Amino acid sequence: MKQGRLYGLGIGPGDPELLTLKAHRILTSSPVIAYPTMESGKVLARALVADFIKADQIELPMPLPFSVERSSQPSYDIAAEKIAVHLEEGRDVAVLCLGDPMLYGTFMYIFNRLSPRFEVEVVPGISSVMASAAMLGVPLTYRDDVFSIIPATLEGEVIREHLKMADASAIIKLGRHFPKVRSILEDLGLLDRAVYIERATWENQRIVPIREVELSEITYWSLILIPSQTQPL
Amino acid sequence: MKQGRLYGLGIGPGDPELLTLKAHRILTSSPVIAYPTMESGKVLARALVADFIKADQIELPMPLPFSVERSSQPSYDIAAEKIAVHLEEGRDVAVLCLGDPMLYGTFMYIFNRLSPRFEVEVVPGISSVMASAAMLGVPLTYRDDVFSIIPATLEGEVIREHLKMADASAIIKLGRHFPKVRSILEDLGLLDRAVYIERATWENQRIVPIREVELSEITYWSLILIPSQTQPL
Repeated sequence: MKQGRLYGLGIGPGDPELLTLKAHRILTSSPVIAYPTMESGKVLARALVADFIKADQIELPMPLPFSVERSSQPSYDIAAEKIAVHLEEGRDVAVLCLGDPMLYGTFMYIFNRLSPRFEVEVVPGISSVMASAAMLGVPLTYRDDVFSIIPATLEGEVIREHLKMADASAIIKLGRHFPKVRSILEDLGLLDRAVYIERATWENQRIVPIREVELSEITYWSLILIPSQTQPL
Repeated sequence: MKQGRLYGLGIGPGDPELLTLKAHRILTSSPVIAYPTMESGKVLARALVADFIKADQIELPMPLPFSVERSSQPSYDIAAEKIAVHLEEGRDVAVLCLGDPMLYGTFMYIFNRLSPRFEVEVVPGISSVMASAAMLGVPLTYRDDVFSIIPATLEGEVIREHLKMADASAIIKLGRHFPKVRSILEDLGLLDRAVYIERATWENQRIVPIREVELSEITYWSLILIPSQTQPL
């Protein structure tokens, strides 16, 4: 029997209208839809595209831990094997990925397990970084600028060095790391350039002046952009 | 009279199916479509989405120089004023942008000129960087990785420092700078990790092993990815 094809489906930052035509076509025609379910019990990726899923599509929830650690390995093994069963039986499987599948995505752990055995197609998605720049209305990088995406989970000294090197940056995965990042930005004189956004393009998107952000309110789904200072034409 | 709204429309990397549902809606409903025409006479952005443009839509070609220099200023002033005429008369104008409008896009020069006077909405698009990772099938960044986008137009020493700092990188705007970049990658021992792609997602996309790339064949629309070496789970 012909094997099914595995799709890594970038569904974009949140707004379902930011799916690509291609992701929409595959999402609405794939016999099996797989998606991570977070520890909290919220099924985020699925909820965002719920209106596109039809009753006759098989749903395959994958209980994957929210943060990726060595101990998450068995959860990914199990998820991959559940997907493999469908592929072996000839059914295509579309795995939903927030943002872009190849950039900090959980899909990559599925990809690495299954790409040696099955045909895989990755459909790129809008990253929350570009979506945030669009929502905030800030041009990020001009001409010869270097742009860096820096996880806030890194050590302060490492974040500081990268911020000093890049012409423009996005600091992602803020959560509880916000105070550390804020104080680095203040030290480097970047606080007036930096802009902050939460849940870009979601219905409950929030844009707050960075000096007014309260730590107690911060979610994982927030980021800081430091746009280029290159003199535009 | 109510002014029209200016849209910066990210149309993605090339494949028209990689437009978002939102970009498709605005492209097919906007009374005026503006797009840059390159010096070479090729009208690239328009050609990629030609099938979506209807006969009753007003087309506004903008003769903009391909490379952005101080001397390009008047071309952008003229293009912005041509757009402003339609906005003043109440017609929405959608400006086509390859990739994402806020990341190295020519739209930003239009944005900076018109956003003080008119309502502007930016629709993010798939960047060629993410599209290339999808086409090459290479996961780019895991967990705490720093990802940098580095223009090949920079000086060799600057490129070298950024490559040493980042966990994963994309080197864009290769063109005639390929030999310089290749020799830096060789020096840093990165040539075996680096992958090369031309015109990602276009009909004439080409994936070539990086050691076999011929300088004479290189276009502006090519890039190199250096994926993360972080041990996946």
